[in-house]
Amino acid sequence: MNSYPRPLAKLIAELSRLPGIGGKTAQRLAFHIVSMSDEEAFSMADAITVAKKELVYCSVCGNLTDSDPCAICSDPSRDRSVVCVVETPKDVAAIERMKEFRGLYHVLHGVISPMDGVGPDDINLRSLIVRLQGSGEVSEIIVATNPNIEGEATAMYAAGLIRPSGIRVTRIAHGIPVGGDLDYTDDETLSRAITGRRDL
Amino acid sequence: MNSYPRPLAKLIAELSRLPGIGGKTAQRLAFHIVSMSDEEAFSMADAITVAKKELVYCSVCGNLTDSDPCAICSDPSRDRSVVCVVETPKDVAAIERMKEFRGLYHVLHGVISPMDGVGPDDINLRSLIVRLQGSGEVSEIIVATNPNIEGEATAMYAAGLIRPSGIRVTRIAHGIPVGGDLDYTDDETLSRAITGRRDL
Repeated sequence: MNSYPRPLAKLIAELSRLPGIGGKTAQRLAFHIVSMSDEEAFSMADAITVAKKELVYCSVCGNLTDSDPCAICSDPSRDRSVVCVVETPKDVAAIERMKEFRGLYHVLHGVISPMDGVGPDDINLRSLIVRLQGSGEVSEIIVATNPNIEGEATAMYAAGLIRPSGIRVTRIAHGIPVGGDLDYTDDETLSRAITGRRDL
Repeated sequence: MNSYPRPLAKLIAELSRLPGIGGKTAQRLAFHIVSMSDEEAFSMADAITVAKKELVYCSVCGNLTDSDPCAICSDPSRDRSVVCVVETPKDVAAIERMKEFRGLYHVLHGVISPMDGVGPDDINLRSLIVRLQGSGEVSEIIVATNPNIEGEATAMYAAGLIRPSGIRVTRIAHGIPVGGDLDYTDDETLSRAITGRRDL
């Protein structure tokens, strides 16, 4: 790689620090960036700087935002009685894309994972309890952490913290995805699908 | 996607203009960039700006460089009697990584491709002829364009232009790659391997 001129080698090194971008891909992207017009390249560099400078975490829900409180928390048309608890801002975006949920969010920025040394105080969970105590409007918490060991443990822990306040705590349904095939579904998912069966 | 704050949406849009980066990957990369430290993110933005500002094409060989003429063209230890003609600066890097070729390069920045409306004058080929006429030191041109229809056509065309000057024009060998398997080799490659056979 030492045959590259220094600015190109530096750009390749920077790009290969991105997740899922290996040396070969970083090289391809770097050559593409150099071949772009000045305007396009500077616009990309600018987008990185601006995003990093302007985006903050919402002081209410912890979502990524360029205005605090975020657009969702400050939207008067949202249903303030339901709060959906998710792991990351990406999950908020996924649920928002669906355009069906009209409640608020709370972003944990992680899950409880003793194996990785992440305890309940290392995620944005206490602030949810403080938020619930302060508002009095919330009647339901939907825990939408991922259906894996850490996500389940976090859901259980959060439910234990919230229940004493009398607020209803629900968990999103796990089962066979729409369009899925029973025959190809793993045992655990199938077991959840049967346990979570509903009256027709 | 409209649920993203504006600076994040802009960053995702910019990243998804890169080749091979779809919407989902751009989103993942954007979230990663936002989660990086200020220093790391600004360093990445800076690398893009600096690479775009400082890199130019060498006025002799057409390779990407931060100093004109490039490090290879201005290296007195290189063999000035051999010039290797390649399609892109990436090809120069590939050959340099091998650390065996000690001659100079000439980067065409493309291949002749009538289907795409690219003629001989749209690539950096005339400058090679001018370069050869001007120097008088060159005794061999190795044409290392890719072994596909456009690459072959470009090689033939270049050879036709150069031969009248009496300079030897060679083509890199095509055949079975080292570690390859005869049984899995396509007919055209096998045919080239047999035509290009050498005495043991």
